[in-house]
Amino acid sequence: MMTLHGYWRSSASYRVRIALALKGVEVSHKSVDLRMGAQRGADYLVKNPQGYVPVLELEDGTMLRQSLAIMDYLDATFREPGLMPGEALLRSKILAASLVIASDIAPIQNSSVQNYIRAEYGQGDAGAMQWAEHWISKGFAALEQIAGEYNTPFLMTEHPMLFECCLIPQVYNARRFGVDMSAYPKLMAIDAACRSLPEFEKAKPENQADAPQGL
Amino acid sequence: MMTLHGYWRSSASYRVRIALALKGVEVSHKSVDLRMGAQRGADYLVKNPQGYVPVLELEDGTMLRQSLAIMDYLDATFREPGLMPGEALLRSKILAASLVIASDIAPIQNSSVQNYIRAEYGQGDAGAMQWAEHWISKGFAALEQIAGEYNTPFLMTEHPMLFECCLIPQVYNARRFGVDMSAYPKLMAIDAACRSLPEFEKAKPENQADAPQGL
Repeated sequence: MMTLHGYWRSSASYRVRIALALKGVEVSHKSVDLRMGAQRGADYLVKNPQGYVPVLELEDGTMLRQSLAIMDYLDATFREPGLMPGEALLRSKILAASLVIASDIAPIQNSSVQNYIRAEYGQGDAGAMQWAEHWISKGFAALEQIAGEYNTPFLMTEHPMLFECCLIPQVYNARRFGVDMSAYPKLMAIDAACRSLPEFEKAKPENQADAPQGL
Repeated sequence: MMTLHGYWRSSASYRVRIALALKGVEVSHKSVDLRMGAQRGADYLVKNPQGYVPVLELEDGTMLRQSLAIMDYLDATFREPGLMPGEALLRSKILAASLVIASDIAPIQNSSVQNYIRAEYGQGDAGAMQWAEHWISKGFAALEQIAGEYNTPFLMTEHPMLFECCLIPQVYNARRFGVDMSAYPKLMAIDAACRSLPEFEKAKPENQADAPQGL
C-alpha cells in the first residue's frame, strides 16, 4: 500500500486526499506535524528536500513530491475517473485554472511565506491575515470570471476534476483567513457541489486522524 | 499563426519561448509592456483576467494562459520532441521538479509580490533583492539535491524537457537578483548544457524584439 505523508490542514495534502478519494484508492496516512516542525527534520528531508508536504511514498519506497505531480501520476496509474480530460484544449484550460491556485495563490499565502513576513517585516496576525486575503482574493477574482464562462456544475465539466481538487482546499483556507466568499458565487456553487459528494467529505481536514479532536 | 502575448524579461514568457523553439513552432510575438502596466489594461484583461503574461492566442482566438498549461497544450499538439516523458513515474518526477520553480519560486519572487512588499512593508531595492534571493535559494537548494541523484546532461534525461524550460529562465532571474550560483554546480551544468543549444539562444530575453537595444 502507498503511504501519503501529509498534514490534516495542509491544502496541498488535502488536494491529494481528494484525488485519492475520487479514484477510490486507499493509502496509509502518515502525519507530518507542521506545527512541531517535523517537515524540517532530517528524516523528512530525505523524503522531500523542500521540506514540504505532501509526499506520496510508493510501495517500492519511491517518493513522489508536489501535489500536482502526484495527481498526474495517480491519473496515469488509476485512470478512472480521470482528473484531466483527454482533449488537449480543455485539458490546458483546466490545468491553467488549477495553476492559478497551485502556483499563484497557495504558495504565496502558505505558512513558510507568512512566517517570513512575520519574522522579517514584523507582521502579526492581522498582517498575516491581510497578506493571505490579498493573494487569495486576487486569484479568486480571476477564477470567478473564468468560471462565469461555463454552465457546468463543476468548473468546465460534469464531474469534479483536477481543478476541484485544488479549489476546495483553497476555499477552506480562504475561510480560515476571513476572505469574503460572497464575491465569488460561481466558485461557491462549485464548492457546494463538491461538498455534497462523499469523496470530498472523506478528504476534509477535520475528518483526518491527525486533526485535533472536537474540531 | 498563433500569437504569444509576452514580455522579453518575464520568466514565464521565456519558458514558453523555449518550448516553442524546442518544438520548432513559429509564432507571432506581441509585447505586453509590464513596465508600462499594459498587463492591467482592459484590452489585456480580456485575454487574461489575472493580468499575467504569457497568453498563447490560438488561430481561432482561444486564449491559453499559465505557462505550464500552455506547454501542456503544445506538447499534446506538437508531439516531437516531447517536453514530458510518456512513463508515469519519470513524468511525475520531472513535473515535480518543474513545479518547485513554477509554483514555489517564481510566483513568490515575481514583480507583483515584490511590488506588494515595497508598498506595504516599505521595502526598497535591497529588501526586494533579499526577498527574491531567499526564495530562489531555498528552491534551488532542494533542486540541487534532487539533481545530484542523476548523471544525465539534463535533469533526468538526455534531452531538455519541461524542467529545463523552467530552470533556465529562473537562473536568469537568479543572476538578476544577485544569487550566488556557485552553490548549485549541478544546476549550473544543466544551465550550461542548455545555453549551448540554439533553441535556448533564440528564446533568450535579450534576443527578443521588445528588449531594450544594446543590452
